[in-house]
Amino acid sequence: MSTASPRDKPIGVFDSGMGGLTVMRALMERLPHESFVYLGDTARLPYGSKSADVVTRYAVQCARALTAHDIKLLVVACNTASSTALPALTQTLAPTPVIGVIEPGAEAAIAAAPSGRIAVIATEGTVRGGAYSRAILARNPAARVTQQACPLFVALAEEGMTTGPIPELVAKQYLDAMLGEAKPECLVLGCTHFPALKETIARVAGPNVVLVDSAATTAKSVERLLGEKNIARESGTPEPPRFLATDAPERFARVGEIFLGRKIAGDSVELVDLQNL
Amino acid sequence: MSTASPRDKPIGVFDSGMGGLTVMRALMERLPHESFVYLGDTARLPYGSKSADVVTRYAVQCARALTAHDIKLLVVACNTASSTALPALTQTLAPTPVIGVIEPGAEAAIAAAPSGRIAVIATEGTVRGGAYSRAILARNPAARVTQQACPLFVALAEEGMTTGPIPELVAKQYLDAMLGEAKPECLVLGCTHFPALKETIARVAGPNVVLVDSAATTAKSVERLLGEKNIARESGTPEPPRFLATDAPERFARVGEIFLGRKIAGDSVELVDLQNL
Repeated sequence: MSTASPRDKPIGVFDSGMGGLTVMRALMERLPHESFVYLGDTARLPYGSKSADVVTRYAVQCARALTAHDIKLLVVACNTASSTALPALTQTLAPTPVIGVIEPGAEAAIAAAPSGRIAVIATEGTVRGGAYSRAILARNPAARVTQQACPLFVALAEEGMTTGPIPELVAKQYLDAMLGEAKPECLVLGCTHFPALKETIARVAGPNVVLVDSAATTAKSVERLLGEKNIARESGTPEPPRFLATDAPERFARVGEIFLGRKIAGDSVELVDLQNL
Repeated sequence: MSTASPRDKPIGVFDSGMGGLTVMRALMERLPHESFVYLGDTARLPYGSKSADVVTRYAVQCARALTAHDIKLLVVACNTASSTALPALTQTLAPTPVIGVIEPGAEAAIAAAPSGRIAVIATEGTVRGGAYSRAILARNPAARVTQQACPLFVALAEEGMTTGPIPELVAKQYLDAMLGEAKPECLVLGCTHFPALKETIARVAGPNVVLVDSAATTAKSVERLLGEKNIARESGTPEPPRFLATDAPERFARVGEIFLGRKIAGDSVELVDLQNL
């Protein structure tokens, strides 16, 4: 396939690790004619506990590695990077458009919570940055947003410890007081790792709280942006997805399949070094 | 103070983060006349879940940053880096001597377990590398070594969730079957984060299992090595300790005090970039 036309260029997606593959999955389902190249910064994950400066530097390096693949649009699938590095990424990639997961997540939360009572659970970095609150309040100034950092959820998801008494106790510890006080109508899963714990979080949150993750809404926003920029590829078979990882490509292929929901061929994952970008 | 004499040069210590400050604490207690410079690679932690290649590259960069401080000896306080990168570090720093925490930890385990029944709990990387088993069996070929990766312990320690029902359940999940089968006489805390959970681990392990961490034994080994190389500083007031961190120096000073057991002056922590070393 020739990539002579801008429409035929791939969409770039990155995350600190493999969690962003849930966003890529939603993108592939909604945009079946588009080609994708995904980068997971597995050598430096997690981003959620690191400073805004470091996350911004890493995110810009990820974006540069993807521009070498001649992408037509960049999706920042990592909540922490979306929360802290979007201005730097937009500036670095201009005129290539950049879209994060925070704005689509805020949009989904507003839709799910007519009362405006919204709770956001995320990493420390995302909570500290406050990007979800700002994005929600920009759309609905009367919203009441509560935030809670849940860093252990990342470790539990990465170990596959997603149901049973341990994640349930951890979820209760993080959520019980917050849910009791704020009585949110919806709970935003503001980290790509958290959908893995959805079942447990839903049980602790109870039947009156809608769980929102930004994957599907992000795919919708990407579709809209491709249309606006007139760069959507609306027919034809895409290139097979390509993957870049900064560490352990074989583990990426093996574990990544769980998040992507489809087979990842071992030879489609390339080891890359971002340090000099 | 002049550093004209090799004896007056500082000892370099590094870890992926702040856990290695427990080793530095033991060193400062045992060697009160020595000066120290410590590096925590907080921008890229943890090392325990990453590949041997990446850990080795990071460890060599840490070592290079410390050689710029004219160190007379390097202590690798990180179990994962000790387990995977010691040959590369020794080669990079030669003739400056390098010492890790695995050999001293193995020595302490042998002393604590006359029966030879020894269990090691560590990160995935340390367990995968098998360095503790090799070091123990080299000293006592009749030893029976059992290993168990406990990655969640790192997240629990970093969140300060060290006692109570959650760490207790996690410890039971990791240890119960292993303790029941292997009936170890001692349990090596093979990660600098794990001493923070000592109380919980001890309760789950029961009164017949001795907990061993390598901090004190490492300090003893360093003392011996300084003597052998004739570079010990045996009198006088040392320079105040200096600290290097690759991310968030103010958080390093604040959280690091818990591990070091003494005040860390904010202006003694310098932000460094290792990417081009």
